[in-house]
Amino acid sequence: MAEQKKISIAVIRRLPRYFRYLYDLMKLDIKRISSKELSDRMCITASQIRQDLNCFGGFGQQGYGYNVESLYEQIGKILGTDKRFACIIVGAGNMGTALANYENFKRRGFDILAIFDVDTNKIHTRINGIEILPMEELEDFVEKHKVDIAMLTVPNRIISEVAKRVTGAGVKGIWNFSPTDLRLGDDVVVENVHLSDSLMVLGYRLREKGY
Amino acid sequence: MAEQKKISIAVIRRLPRYFRYLYDLMKLDIKRISSKELSDRMCITASQIRQDLNCFGGFGQQGYGYNVESLYEQIGKILGTDKRFACIIVGAGNMGTALANYENFKRRGFDILAIFDVDTNKIHTRINGIEILPMEELEDFVEKHKVDIAMLTVPNRIISEVAKRVTGAGVKGIWNFSPTDLRLGDDVVVENVHLSDSLMVLGYRLREKGY
Repeated sequence: MAEQKKISIAVIRRLPRYFRYLYDLMKLDIKRISSKELSDRMCITASQIRQDLNCFGGFGQQGYGYNVESLYEQIGKILGTDKRFACIIVGAGNMGTALANYENFKRRGFDILAIFDVDTNKIHTRINGIEILPMEELEDFVEKHKVDIAMLTVPNRIISEVAKRVTGAGVKGIWNFSPTDLRLGDDVVVENVHLSDSLMVLGYRLREKGY
Repeated sequence: MAEQKKISIAVIRRLPRYFRYLYDLMKLDIKRISSKELSDRMCITASQIRQDLNCFGGFGQQGYGYNVESLYEQIGKILGTDKRFACIIVGAGNMGTALANYENFKRRGFDILAIFDVDTNKIHTRINGIEILPMEELEDFVEKHKVDIAMLTVPNRIISEVAKRVTGAGVKGIWNFSPTDLRLGDDVVVENVHLSDSLMVLGYRLREKGY
């Protein structure tokens, strides 16, 4: 990232959304778009869009707008879609299975190499072609395949223990689906997916509207 | 909400996290906590915490801190956990099954009444006690049970059609798990769960650290 100036995490969190929209535009064979049009589609103000995109160089041209494909590529580059990440899933329950079946992840640079579970009935079966391996093989696998990211979908009562095991073996990125906010030291990056937080915000917004 | 002043959506989006932390503190039988201690646990600055909590009345007392239980109850009230929401899941795949098995939702006020799917092999079977019903019964069920929220875990190619059907039948809240950002008019509240957005942010943060 040496060539880029630091982009705030708030902007970064909005980039995947631009990325999705631009991908859809490309599929529709749309070559260029103004910040105004993008604004209408995304329900973000045009000035916010210009400000966000200016953060990494601003490719918009007065009277022309943005070149969809080059903006898509540039955002992909910032987000690291040109890099591949070696991932594992720990926990072959419904959530783990749902993740293993997401076709999007591979296209975005995330290769799921294996799934780990304690259930002996599941060991050596496959989900979407990805083999389920026993927990005993976790550390060896992580070291051998230089796993970057562990997607943790295990029950909450064992989440801390599992997080310690994967990071102890060298994993630097944790995608955490448990309700526990994991804190694993400064050299580990954790993204928490708290589904019920999102649901509670939905409930709040409904109440606010008087429903 | 007439009795409350308007709280910004940015603060609202942080409240579920306070709510979870306070719940954990209650389970540990901790009666009171200072903004400093809460700050250390949550990795949010103490001043941000004071500012957030001040938005709805500020219960902290100098030299005493916050009463954990009353703060928990107050935040729950703001988030609407004292109200119950009637919910359905559309799509009985892995994600729908995972959601049906979340025990947290009921405790937070969200009752899942039924699951809808097109798969005739699944109709009238149950997930976590919740019956799977055929899509033909969707509209009647929504009207009869005054369904507030539809959790949509259907394939992306039919998401717009399904969203139209549930909102046409009276649903006001959509919890959308597809990659499509749904726009359904001002009287419908949509919360989108874009899992791959979160994963891309994780990838960015790893790259930024030089991994």
